[in-house]
Amino acid sequence: MKPLHLMSYVQGGWYAAQDRLETVASAVTGETVAELGTAGIDFAAMARHARQIGGPALRAMTFHERARMLKALAEAIMARKEELYALSAHTGATRGDGWIDIEGGAGTLFAYSSKGRRELPNDTVLLDGPPEILSKRGTFLGQHIYTPLQGVAVHINAFNFPCWGMLEKLGPTLLAGVPAIVKPASSTAYVTEACVRIMLEAGVLPDGALQLLSGSTGDLLDHLTCQDIVSFTGSAATAQKIQSNPVFARESVRFVAERDSLNATVLGPDATPDAPEFDLFVKEVVREMTTKAGQKCTAIRRTFVPRPLIDAVEQAIAARLAKVVVGDPAQEGVTMGALVSERQLRDVRATVAELAREARIVFGDPDADPLPGGAFLSPILLRCDAPWEAAGVHDKEAFGPVSTLMPYDDVADAIALCNRGQGSLVMSLFTYDPAVAAQVVAGAGAWHGRVLILDRDCARESTGHGSPLPGLVHGGPGRAGGGEEMGGIRGVHHYMQRTALQGSPRMLAAVGHRWVAGAPVADTPPHPFRLRFGELEIGKTVVTEARTISLADIEHFAEFTGDTFYAHMDEEAAAANPFFPGRVAHGYLILSFAAGLFVDPAPGPVLANYGLDSLRFLKPVSPGDAIRVRLTAKAKSQRNEEYGEVRWDALVTNQEDETVATYELLTMNAL
Amino acid sequence: MKPLHLMSYVQGGWYAAQDRLETVASAVTGETVAELGTAGIDFAAMARHARQIGGPALRAMTFHERARMLKALAEAIMARKEELYALSAHTGATRGDGWIDIEGGAGTLFAYSSKGRRELPNDTVLLDGPPEILSKRGTFLGQHIYTPLQGVAVHINAFNFPCWGMLEKLGPTLLAGVPAIVKPASSTAYVTEACVRIMLEAGVLPDGALQLLSGSTGDLLDHLTCQDIVSFTGSAATAQKIQSNPVFARESVRFVAERDSLNATVLGPDATPDAPEFDLFVKEVVREMTTKAGQKCTAIRRTFVPRPLIDAVEQAIAARLAKVVVGDPAQEGVTMGALVSERQLRDVRATVAELAREARIVFGDPDADPLPGGAFLSPILLRCDAPWEAAGVHDKEAFGPVSTLMPYDDVADAIALCNRGQGSLVMSLFTYDPAVAAQVVAGAGAWHGRVLILDRDCARESTGHGSPLPGLVHGGPGRAGGGEEMGGIRGVHHYMQRTALQGSPRMLAAVGHRWVAGAPVADTPPHPFRLRFGELEIGKTVVTEARTISLADIEHFAEFTGDTFYAHMDEEAAAANPFFPGRVAHGYLILSFAAGLFVDPAPGPVLANYGLDSLRFLKPVSPGDAIRVRLTAKAKSQRNEEYGEVRWDALVTNQEDETVATYELLTMNAL
Repeated sequence: MKPLHLMSYVQGGWYAAQDRLETVASAVTGETVAELGTAGIDFAAMARHARQIGGPALRAMTFHERARMLKALAEAIMARKEELYALSAHTGATRGDGWIDIEGGAGTLFAYSSKGRRELPNDTVLLDGPPEILSKRGTFLGQHIYTPLQGVAVHINAFNFPCWGMLEKLGPTLLAGVPAIVKPASSTAYVTEACVRIMLEAGVLPDGALQLLSGSTGDLLDHLTCQDIVSFTGSAATAQKIQSNPVFARESVRFVAERDSLNATVLGPDATPDAPEFDLFVKEVVREMTTKAGQKCTAIRRTFVPRPLIDAVEQAIAARLAKVVVGDPAQEGVTMGALVSERQLRDVRATVAELAREARIVFGDPDADPLPGGAFLSPILLRCDAPWEAAGVHDKEAFGPVSTLMPYDDVADAIALCNRGQGSLVMSLFTYDPAVAAQVVAGAGAWHGRVLILDRDCARESTGHGSPLPGLVHGGPGRAGGGEEMGGIRGVHHYMQRTALQGSPRMLAAVGHRWVAGAPVADTPPHPFRLRFGELEIGKTVVTEARTISLADIEHFAEFTGDTFYAHMDEEAAAANPFFPGRVAHGYLILSFAAGLFVDPAPGPVLANYGLDSLRFLKPVSPGDAIRVRLTAKAKSQRNEEYGEVRWDALVTNQEDETVATYELLTMNAL
Repeated sequence: MKPLHLMSYVQGGWYAAQDRLETVASAVTGETVAELGTAGIDFAAMARHARQIGGPALRAMTFHERARMLKALAEAIMARKEELYALSAHTGATRGDGWIDIEGGAGTLFAYSSKGRRELPNDTVLLDGPPEILSKRGTFLGQHIYTPLQGVAVHINAFNFPCWGMLEKLGPTLLAGVPAIVKPASSTAYVTEACVRIMLEAGVLPDGALQLLSGSTGDLLDHLTCQDIVSFTGSAATAQKIQSNPVFARESVRFVAERDSLNATVLGPDATPDAPEFDLFVKEVVREMTTKAGQKCTAIRRTFVPRPLIDAVEQAIAARLAKVVVGDPAQEGVTMGALVSERQLRDVRATVAELAREARIVFGDPDADPLPGGAFLSPILLRCDAPWEAAGVHDKEAFGPVSTLMPYDDVADAIALCNRGQGSLVMSLFTYDPAVAAQVVAGAGAWHGRVLILDRDCARESTGHGSPLPGLVHGGPGRAGGGEEMGGIRGVHHYMQRTALQGSPRMLAAVGHRWVAGAPVADTPPHPFRLRFGELEIGKTVVTEARTISLADIEHFAEFTGDTFYAHMDEEAAAANPFFPGRVAHGYLILSFAAGLFVDPAPGPVLANYGLDSLRFLKPVSPGDAIRVRLTAKAKSQRNEEYGEVRWDALVTNQEDETVATYELLTMNAL
């Protein structure tokens, strides 16, 4: 094919650099597939465009509006995915590798869209936790709030997943309301550029929300401030080079790094060759070595097995590796593609040569050339029988289809060996013994960002050692960069500032769009259940009449429901209980009578009571006590074009005005 | 007094350096009060001691045990607080300043002790959020978990609060289960050393949990790994110097910085001189200028007022400043003490001279010498009428009793001026107008770690602009260092690693000490309510008989409770509702019958049902449907020597085995 001239998307327009271009070769044929560069771009102006145009537009949208935008982007990618698969083949990726990148990337946007609508309010304001009581009389409260950063997110991505690597960062960023500048790795930037085109052509992104740099970031980083964030995926060396820019320490620019690491897997001491976990382990090691030709930051580099089993494991892995077909991903039957480039191939061979000083190669030949022209390499298994005497196997990563098999003596030894990688993105454990799992998590948890415990019960549905998932944090300590991405809404928080607000209940309710105890209430007619979703304002309240609960009520309720717990039925036994003065009303009787007091029976905007949260019974209700309820609209979130959710604060008091129970009621209200 | 020879607490013993000592002068008299140094200490061995002895001992304790330890430390400090007040006077602090430091510090430990027992489990395992559903059949789940870092926390503290500054970091650190090495600033290290002695003599800290460096940290930082964390409070320059150590980027060592910043306050446009907020504003500005002689990282450095009010504000502040009595804190009637040192005095005078190029001094004389011998300075108010033409007033901090008064044009201008400080720890706003507050939080929130909205409703109970509180995050973006401390349990997480676990329900339940759907249940007799707290295991279950709900039941319940909502009473109206097929049972009827099904009536270990969480009604129950309940012990947390809390998973199903409702029930169970 004719080489593609990649463009950047800058300040709302496509830009093609004309000089100082870099060329990219096909991983399969070695021919030039693309040229790219960013000479001539005003990087500071790009950042300003994002901050002044993109940010305000995104912040004006609610979380649900941003979530729907993500869904539209994902749908656009899925509709044109074959264009991306066609380009992806030039990177050496098989169809299966491309699926992870393209459909996995779109899936991540779908997941963020769904989470955004289920777990975030249909609002621009996001609170963090309940109010903090800061004073005795309750006139002074605290409330944490998240607000979007007012700068730009700079995403510096790795070559291995040109779509997913962009999209897993873009989902949380855009959902947070922050614009992004994406800088893909040059060697696969042609896939990213095509994906960006598809997203822009979907027509749902506000101007300035997304810009693309096909090539170097120039002096962009020098212009960053505390409102900006750099999110990096790649090697430790590149991360440290970027981080050495003084702007990070001077301006406290956020830096999130996800660096490749020496991920480990452990075959549990119980997983002998007759246990299902043994086969699962062998399959997973081979899968991790060969998927994407091992070019995954999560791939298994260190394979630890009980010392007595090492020969059996070696044979089983080697037998399975022997079936791997390396070749042009376009060919039928090929199960492993090429490395991304000749340079990558050279790097991997050099690292294998270093590892081979401490370990011996038991499968594969790094110098063989399975296929001329492209960057092909056979899978390589090394074995190191004295892992505590070796250093490189725990430190040097061959970023290709390479893993090192090592023995351990007991679980504590396995934990120590895993941790010797100085922090990783993920480790996995194959065991059916919960005690082993608990010991490994307690001992190794702090060193690894993700721990997969694989056994016969979950194997069929497991997504595997190497797959980061949108709902789980991705990133790890130390060698893995110390960062965190995704993790559901946790990843959205990375692009926001958490601020502690302090003030009166009235002020905090107004700022947070959530009524808090002590804030003004509107308790005059009409009954709040008479108001449609749009008419109902936070603070709207009904205070009910009082109802006396008699001993007959309690006895009747007990008989009717079958709940004859002694605290309701037996004066002497109840009084002996440390919490009760004598016979008391059932908690559910209080709840039921409360509903009877506040419910407005005729059809109206309240469609259903769909739930209840945080109920606490604070004081027993004795026969003869009279309860009343104050019900106040606390928060609202529109769900669709027909109805929205309303959260109500319910306060049940007795005749002495003491609080008997508190809870939050959830209703669906017609718009 | 005879100079104190300060000691370090190293590997379980006190150590006095003999050479390369540094001397510290009294802020009040200028005489030498202390000498200190760390020559001869093996810093790497200190870190190893913390990791190998202190960490394991702390991690073996539950969160509640660590919380009780914090309470004992706080009690020990309160019992011997006069020793600390006596030393504190030499730092130039008044009794009021000392109260913030000493009793405020102990109060922070009390607060963490209380939060630890209320908000964390009495366990060593801490989960983050609910399980993540990762598969269709539910055999593969995710669960985030926090585990304590396995290294050491190095706390590098500022001079201004030698007790509080240590304790606000130590509370979350020890509660997380992480040992600390404390390094106070030299100029007030004698107060810190005394406080550490008091804590060690309380006899509650495990060996290795707390070490002290009275002097330089030597090469300590070079030995840190990803399991260690440096928590720093001080100047931006020092922070950048520390951060330039390559260990941070290389090993991804966590660095939490809290740097002094150009904190702002804003008088709202509604707060005219006749409004209560005007007086509150004037008082707060003066209080912030004079408390601790203005040596607080949270002090107000930039004072913004509506342009038409600037003269009135200037006069009011000046009038109040005129009443401030500067002098020896030991003297009766003194309301402001000394700066910490002669050097600090020189620095403040130099910065005021720089500020005076852009602003004019309208109160105070930086060159006057209120009292000979000590580091005394009168409060100084500057005024700058063109804040957008000035740079230094937004950037240069005089760390003393100094603030600059400036005008703004409208709320948007005030927001932009506040944000021009490039990030701060705190800003405050004096307004009674909720719309102004909402606008300021939306526009400025992302630039400030804390926003105080002060008005007539909260003034009496307000803790003020300058007071970080244990329940709220302390720290801020940009100039303020980009870090976060405290914030209740949020601050505990800083010393832990969050890890995503994946596996089968059985494994996650075993590792997380919390039953999850799909994990094994033990549903044979006895009834779980017959088991004492200690005997009851997670997963213990009762499955009840079924009970049919008749139309008569629904009508009877409606009549008895008064809840005659149409969905229960009127077939036609109910069927017109989008959620119901026709008349349905009340949610509270389902709950009540469910309790009737699972309750075990006779006295036994279950003392009370004290609450209910996360109730969701998932499918309507029509007349004739039969419900049954599966109740499973989900989590336990011992509360005291008599009883503990049990959280139960309740699943209500109908005759088709469809889920009708889910909730969590909370009981108190005897030990």
